Amino acid sequence: MRKIAVLTSGGDAPGMNAAIRAVVRRGIYKGIDVFGIHNGYEGLLEGHITPMTLGSVGDIIHRGGTILRTSRSERFKTEEGQKTAIKQLNNYGIDGLVVVGGDGSFNGARKLGEKGVPVVGIPGTIDNDIAGTDYSIGFNTAVSTAIDAIDKIRDTAFSHERTSVVEVMGRGAGDIALWAGLCSGAESIIIPEASYRIEDIFERITCGRNRGKMHSIIVVAEGVCRAEEISVALRERFKLDTRVIVLGYLQRGGTPTAYDRMIGSQMGAKAVDLLIDGHGGNMVGFNSGKIVYKSFEQAEKQVHEIDMSLYQLAQTLSI
Amino acid sequence: MRKIAVLTSGGDAPGMNAAIRAVVRRGIYKGIDVFGIHNGYEGLLEGHITPMTLGSVGDIIHRGGTILRTSRSERFKTEEGQKTAIKQLNNYGIDGLVVVGGDGSFNGARKLGEKGVPVVGIPGTIDNDIAGTDYSIGFNTAVSTAIDAIDKIRDTAFSHERTSVVEVMGRGAGDIALWAGLCSGAESIIIPEASYRIEDIFERITCGRNRGKMHSIIVVAEGVCRAEEISVALRERFKLDTRVIVLGYLQRGGTPTAYDRMIGSQMGAKAVDLLIDGHGGNMVGFNSGKIVYKSFEQAEKQVHEIDMSLYQLAQTLSI
Amino acid sequence: MRKIAVLTSGGDAPGMNAAIRAVVRRGIYKGIDVFGIHNGYEGLLEGHITPMTLGSVGDIIHRGGTILRTSRSERFKTEEGQKTAIKQLNNYGIDGLVVVGGDGSFNGARKLGEKGVPVVGIPGTIDNDIAGTDYSIGFNTAVSTAIDAIDKIRDTAFSHERTSVVEVMGRGAGDIALWAGLCSGAESIIIPEASYRIEDIFERITCGRNRGKMHSIIVVAEGVCRAEEISVALRERFKLDTRVIVLGYLQRGGTPTAYDRMIGSQMGAKAVDLLIDGHGGNMVGFNSGKIVYKSFEQAEKQVHEIDMSLYQLAQTLSI
Amino acid sequence: MRKIAVLTSGGDAPGMNAAIRAVVRRGIYKGIDVFGIHNGYEGLLEGHITPMTLGSVGDIIHRGGTILRTSRSERFKTEEGQKTAIKQLNNYGIDGLVVVGGDGSFNGARKLGEKGVPVVGIPGTIDNDIAGTDYSIGFNTAVSTAIDAIDKIRDTAFSHERTSVVEVMGRGAGDIALWAGLCSGAESIIIPEASYRIEDIFERITCGRNRGKMHSIIVVAEGVCRAEEISVALRERFKLDTRVIVLGYLQRGGTPTAYDRMIGSQMGAKAVDLLIDGHGGNMVGFNSGKIVYKSFEQAEKQVHEIDMSLYQLAQTLSI
Repeated sequence: MRKIAVLTSGGDAPGMNAAIRAVVRRGIYKGIDVFGIHNGYEGLLEGHITPMTLGSVGDIIHRGGTILRTSRSERFKTEEGQKTAIKQLNNYGIDGLVVVGGDGSFNGARKLGEKGVPVVGIPGTIDNDIAGTDYSIGFNTAVSTAIDAIDKIRDTAFSHERTSVVEVMGRGAGDIALWAGLCSGAESIIIPEASYRIEDIFERITCGRNRGKMHSIIVVAEGVCRAEEISVALRERFKLDTRVIVLGYLQRGGTPTAYDRMIGSQMGAKAVDLLIDGHGGNMVGFNSGKIVYKSFEQAEKQVHEIDMSLYQLAQTLSI
Repeated sequence: MRKIAVLTSGGDAPGMNAAIRAVVRRGIYKGIDVFGIHNGYEGLLEGHITPMTLGSVGDIIHRGGTILRTSRSERFKTEEGQKTAIKQLNNYGIDGLVVVGGDGSFNGARKLGEKGVPVVGIPGTIDNDIAGTDYSIGFNTAVSTAIDAIDKIRDTAFSHERTSVVEVMGRGAGDIALWAGLCSGAESIIIPEASYRIEDIFERITCGRNRGKMHSIIVVAEGVCRAEEISVALRERFKLDTRVIVLGYLQRGGTPTAYDRMIGSQMGAKAVDLLIDGHGGNMVGFNSGKIVYKSFEQAEKQVHEIDMSLYQLAQTLSI
Repeated sequence: MRKIAVLTSGGDAPGMNAAIRAVVRRGIYKGIDVFGIHNGYEGLLEGHITPMTLGSVGDIIHRGGTILRTSRSERFKTEEGQKTAIKQLNNYGIDGLVVVGGDGSFNGARKLGEKGVPVVGIPGTIDNDIAGTDYSIGFNTAVSTAIDAIDKIRDTAFSHERTSVVEVMGRGAGDIALWAGLCSGAESIIIPEASYRIEDIFERITCGRNRGKMHSIIVVAEGVCRAEEISVALRERFKLDTRVIVLGYLQRGGTPTAYDRMIGSQMGAKAVDLLIDGHGGNMVGFNSGKIVYKSFEQAEKQVHEIDMSLYQLAQTLSI
Repeated sequence: MRKIAVLTSGGDAPGMNAAIRAVVRRGIYKGIDVFGIHNGYEGLLEGHITPMTLGSVGDIIHRGGTILRTSRSERFKTEEGQKTAIKQLNNYGIDGLVVVGGDGSFNGARKLGEKGVPVVGIPGTIDNDIAGTDYSIGFNTAVSTAIDAIDKIRDTAFSHERTSVVEVMGRGAGDIALWAGLCSGAESIIIPEASYRIEDIFERITCGRNRGKMHSIIVVAEGVCRAEEISVALRERFKLDTRVIVLGYLQRGGTPTAYDRMIGSQMGAKAVDLLIDGHGGNMVGFNSGKIVYKSFEQAEKQVHEIDMSLYQLAQTLSI
């Protein structure tokens, strides 16, 4: 292993820069040349590849987004696209690749691996829905952004004695909603992994009102339904004064938290070590509080599971 | 003047607590009893009036929202409602009232004044659209929240080379959009006070792209149109990759900035001084960098005007 | 178990309120009366004990410090003090106690246990130096505060091409320094667990300068030496332009991060469950990414160990 | 006027980047070439001068510090230094200069002016102590940083029932201490512009204690004395449990607030307009809520005065 490259793919996530920095610096520390591929797989196809130095990743650990940018590439999904990608890597003499991204990106990584390129994946997505790891880079920052927002919303909900319905990201997984709801003391949390009844939500609100709590917060994962639907149901059926807020892309950006900088740094260094040790074909993961790795095949057979004990905990704490 | 009361009315705004604190403490300092009226004019009608102490406004200067809560009252707009209000004030021997709120709240204040109650108004609304003052409590914090959000959005816009359309509050006034846009370096700012052409917006974006800036931010005041409309227009007519974010009620909450704590404190103290000096029937204002006051009648004849020189400045700085 | 009480002891830590809230609500949910003891063991001795309701822990999850306040008590360390404490608990019919604090507080808890009171401990201290757990409530927030500060310091260090020496908390353990240093990309990290040579620090700075990085950050744990000493050494021996900043008590306060709210909530609920299940005499802990528990005796035999792999990681990433 | 340059001098301040951006973009908008001088006057002497483009000030408005860096130059204070400076400007054909800095920097600017170079000054320093203007870029952000810190310190002061003494910047002027103290509800504020007696401070604390407020905050400007001295006096003479925190260089850095971005942008653009209109030899200022300008001579005759009405206000609000 003399030359490796790193790219970020799929949706961007805070902490990706920490991972890029770690890949570059660990690589250089180990005597390896490191290249940066811009704009994900699409950039790889087009040969947007530049050498990285210690300085090119200086002062980025605290920046949101990804300095390498990212994109989604349809072309790369084709057989021909993958061949072009390999040709580009060969042009630069790159014999190892680190891909920071989600399930889709790892699928591409696996295909390159089947064609002989040692690739290591690093899980990065705010949704925390990647199979084979308990944690994905960006999740902690996204939750942090969501609870900052809910802390603000609570001020105005209190002042007006209103019910606020907050829609957070999470198409397939309720992790952001669950953490943000639990950590901000939301009265109800609606996630794809659990069914809900509007009557129960109303009952919880009524319960609070009976003991003098006139405002309440409901957090809903976008994968379940629009916040607007919940709001309308509560307004029409129960005559509540409701307001809706959709956090949206806000959750993708922002200075990464300490946690995401740390995990990003650890995973980035681990990915380089795996390539050096001949362990291409693996993704880095986080299980039982430790940085681990497993093959893409192994990971693919697993399913990301939300921690339902947290859901039950939230139920008992928001009575 | 021996007993005064304070209430917050209309939409809540960060810094209202600083004003309440100042009214209470300045009053007590001057040897006056101060009462808090809960839930705005509606609470006044229902006699939700409690004595305030030094301690009851302790540790609130840094909290968003209003500890006195607020509401909109239809009843108070009637002749009969106003009579009931005066009866309630008389019940408590209250001979002076401070109202923190916007134009509508001042209208009510003026009516009470015509019926013999000395009332002083303090401008509080995040929209900064109150006639007779250059500044209303809450505006600086709302702008701060908006630019924090846009700073985050820029991270992800950069990573994906996208155009983000950010909708901020401001039904009648573009102040938040103008400040937030200028202070976050937005490429385009759309406000009710100036016409816009979608072609010009596209041209500015193209200009930036030609010199390598692949992402851009457009800030639009809700009073003009929905961000979604701008987004659709850019996507359909110019094939741009756009994303929409509506900041909404987020802008109402949050820890007040130093500026709002300061102006809130100054205005609160000034309101008490005016009542003591027999200057009921006035609103406190901020003009030419100074705390001033003027009669409700005088203020009503004025119109809040946005500083269009800032709009022109924004145009020249976002080339 | 029909009545339990909760107190916070030792230094306060962000997230303690989340733990208190969880103890109270989980208790009530399980049909138990919950009491709050004010001012730690000292307050227990003086009978500062009040019943807690669902409402008394409302809107506290996001507040720093501890609503129950805390103190250090010399009296409680005596045999007689402990007997008085038990008498007070008996007066209220309290048959179970939750103590949130550090090693010293657990020592007291163990003594009460030996006298027949079921006590469960929850580790809370920003230093993260408690035996028997990988994580203590407050650590993540303290690190977050430290990296926010260092991010600011870096701005001005950059502008002036200076070396900043930042002193963070941690008398016996370098955890805060290690995390804060690694997560903020500090050039050097000085912790009690590893020896250092001033020459090596200077060499790292020189290394950076040679490739154009004119500013640098050194993070030192207070347990090693004062930042001022490092600063003087660098200034006198190597003629560097240095500045010192001591973060101090700043690190104790502030809105708890999502992580501390989550761990606090989980540990609080777990403590109640342990008391109900007859598992007094244990402390809640966090090991291998899971909430666990172990006896105070067992914990006492262990020593908190810093993760030295992170130190090595920091070395390779700050080349 | 065809070519102008901009430099930052003296202590850095948040918002300087907004000013640099405005100078560059307004200049280019007006058809002028703009150069950046690195490292202040020292860099000017050494010819560290580079052309600035629209892109070179992209994405900097929200960054703390100054991208042009800054320094203090002894050489420039000499006649010979000034001649060298002018030679360097002539080498590049630069016929106008914008200097962002404080009193000392303006003194240098005036000297260049006397030798025929049109120079315009922009006041930038967190201390807000520049003669001839009510406001200097960076002050609002420094206050914001200070109140954020004090909000955190209050959490832990509350938990431990302590008195915290917070030392803020301000050698000659108490503006930061006054604003930070007033806006964070400090019990006492000690500034160079007003004498104080330790007995009065103790009396205020006692007053609060008598009504149940067990913690308190004292803010002291570094220009008066070290916080440690106040702390020792209170501890020794009145047996208070005190803690000291010195905010120090923390206050220099950080993302500029909306206010500093706005004033920085306005002042930057104004400086360019002044140069174009032949108004060299002036400093931009902020008086009565408006951007103004006045000659360096005129400004020099004035003295920055703190607003003592705010000091009196603080006294009445912290009873």
